[in-house]
Amino acid sequence: MIGMPVDDIPTPALVVDLDALDLNIERLGLLLAQTGVRSRPHAKAHKCVEIARRQIAQGAIGICCQTVAEVEAFAAAGIVDILLTNEVTDPRKLARLAAISDDTRLGICVDSMMALELIAQARPRRVWDIYIEVDVGGARCGLKDPIAAVALAREVSRLGLNFAGLQAYNGKIQHLRNAAERKRATANTAAATRVFVQAFERAGLVPGVISGGGTGTVVFDCANGVLGEVQCGTYALMDADYRSLQSTPGPKFALALTVLASVIAVASDHVVIDAGLKALAFDSGMPAPRDLDQIAYGNPSDEHGILTAVQGASLPLLGERVHLIPGHCDPTVALHERLYAVRRGMVEEVWRPLARGVW
Amino acid sequence: MIGMPVDDIPTPALVVDLDALDLNIERLGLLLAQTGVRSRPHAKAHKCVEIARRQIAQGAIGICCQTVAEVEAFAAAGIVDILLTNEVTDPRKLARLAAISDDTRLGICVDSMMALELIAQARPRRVWDIYIEVDVGGARCGLKDPIAAVALAREVSRLGLNFAGLQAYNGKIQHLRNAAERKRATANTAAATRVFVQAFERAGLVPGVISGGGTGTVVFDCANGVLGEVQCGTYALMDADYRSLQSTPGPKFALALTVLASVIAVASDHVVIDAGLKALAFDSGMPAPRDLDQIAYGNPSDEHGILTAVQGASLPLLGERVHLIPGHCDPTVALHERLYAVRRGMVEEVWRPLARGVW
Repeated sequence: MIGMPVDDIPTPALVVDLDALDLNIERLGLLLAQTGVRSRPHAKAHKCVEIARRQIAQGAIGICCQTVAEVEAFAAAGIVDILLTNEVTDPRKLARLAAISDDTRLGICVDSMMALELIAQARPRRVWDIYIEVDVGGARCGLKDPIAAVALAREVSRLGLNFAGLQAYNGKIQHLRNAAERKRATANTAAATRVFVQAFERAGLVPGVISGGGTGTVVFDCANGVLGEVQCGTYALMDADYRSLQSTPGPKFALALTVLASVIAVASDHVVIDAGLKALAFDSGMPAPRDLDQIAYGNPSDEHGILTAVQGASLPLLGERVHLIPGHCDPTVALHERLYAVRRGMVEEVWRPLARGVW
Repeated sequence: MIGMPVDDIPTPALVVDLDALDLNIERLGLLLAQTGVRSRPHAKAHKCVEIARRQIAQGAIGICCQTVAEVEAFAAAGIVDILLTNEVTDPRKLARLAAISDDTRLGICVDSMMALELIAQARPRRVWDIYIEVDVGGARCGLKDPIAAVALAREVSRLGLNFAGLQAYNGKIQHLRNAAERKRATANTAAATRVFVQAFERAGLVPGVISGGGTGTVVFDCANGVLGEVQCGTYALMDADYRSLQSTPGPKFALALTVLASVIAVASDHVVIDAGLKALAFDSGMPAPRDLDQIAYGNPSDEHGILTAVQGASLPLLGERVHLIPGHCDPTVALHERLYAVRRGMVEEVWRPLARGVW
């Protein structure tokens, strides 16, 4: 398929524009080079080792993964510095992590004594970095109480493990619509993180690497002086949700990811395209047709979507192709076996998102 | 993994209860045996050849597929009677269909002259059955005008192709909450279908096999005397959406499909489980925790879901496992590389959903 024109790709197809991807990775690299904050991009957003390698070539110190299967796949593909930004409470999964190559330095998060004890029983081929996950407003995983976080860090040392830092991610604030709101929320998250840092310092412990942040807040994260590394994921591919955030100071990220679809049927008031619930994620809203301002996507079913025209605009014709900007890139990528990497209208590479549908 | 207890399966995991699956397939088989309507279950709902084989063993004449890749995969797995309930307007995809084994009898839908001309140019190894898709209220694909449908059928014959029948599916009415409403809507759909049948008869054409219907309306479909075959898909696995439909006369289908998840973190007011946007489809609402009436699932992110308790009920503990009933089975199945087929708490088989993320 290498060298094939984009218009010959069988649809629906996940397509990445390499010029836009390269630009995004370069822009984040430049921002972080200026601030001294390290970059550890989240690979759950793209699942592609080819993208991870590009990020590392532009200064990233390694990647984040969200599942054990992702860690296995990225380590097997040669990524040597991975932070698993998640809790693992299944001893069988910890045994799988313990078996990955000792070429890979692995960090792992904990927020409970039970998980820590299971980790202590694992026998990794290379000593793990233990990160205490703290809840700095995300209301998902993580300890809320700084005293409990200090106590868990002491247990890490008592068990002879290697305490490395704090996982302090607040996913909720990434998507606030307004930049001023995101700035204020990032400051609040940084303040919440500082409370943990101070508790560690008061207890005579070094808090280590503070890891967190994301695409929506990275400019503010870098200015706050709390995070040692940021975990941006979406910036590389982008999506309709992040695009709709009101202007942020700092780097602009281009839309690199689309789902290419074809018109397969034409009715009097709509056309039907071949991209529905199995080709696009809908949790962050409907996809946006690219280059078609007056056309709206709606009524997805498993394998179909409906395009309608507003204000008398012309709908695409039977057989015509449409690029859709997914609402949310991460779960959209996970739906596709292939990612067609294109430049100036030609397929340059075909990538395989890793660890799709396995955990 | 065969013989493994369900509680040892790595989570999140797609699990099918074989007793419930077998019961559902048997119940639909019995209903249709009584009515004389043929069963052609839709394989897009489960993507598993093991389920298709069970359906055929219980009287189904073959299956429906929704994509060319599904047709290829099910034909390669030995299914010899397939109706592709979709339009194909890409000559490269038609060439792929033309290359499938001549052991398989293939039906294909058309609703445009352009698609029909492309079909006429394909050189299948075995002559295809051409179905004209008609819009009987679904407002998706299909011709709305009976005169146009008759004209397209004449073109089928003129081009030397084999006109086989009408695809007359109305997806919109499957999910109407109330059984009386569904009954009325099914009668309206049958009346709309009859208008097409009469147009064919007036034109001196045999309308052939009329195919349509689904899990939500099958009891009414069978009573209407219009459909020659029904295309139920969900009934085999079931989901929370179909379960919530108000009582229908006729067979009750059991919930056979769950996503098994584990509690990986515990907070003061919620617990976090390891099944989110990449393990469950959310287009038909939140999944329902099974066996946990007072517990609600919410706030999915890529790899996480949040369980909260209503009315002071107890949340599951760290490490505990929870079965979730997906809102919509079709796109949930497509998210998973494996389907664990269990009986009485033990893994009996591990199935691979076919043609996931390819088209």
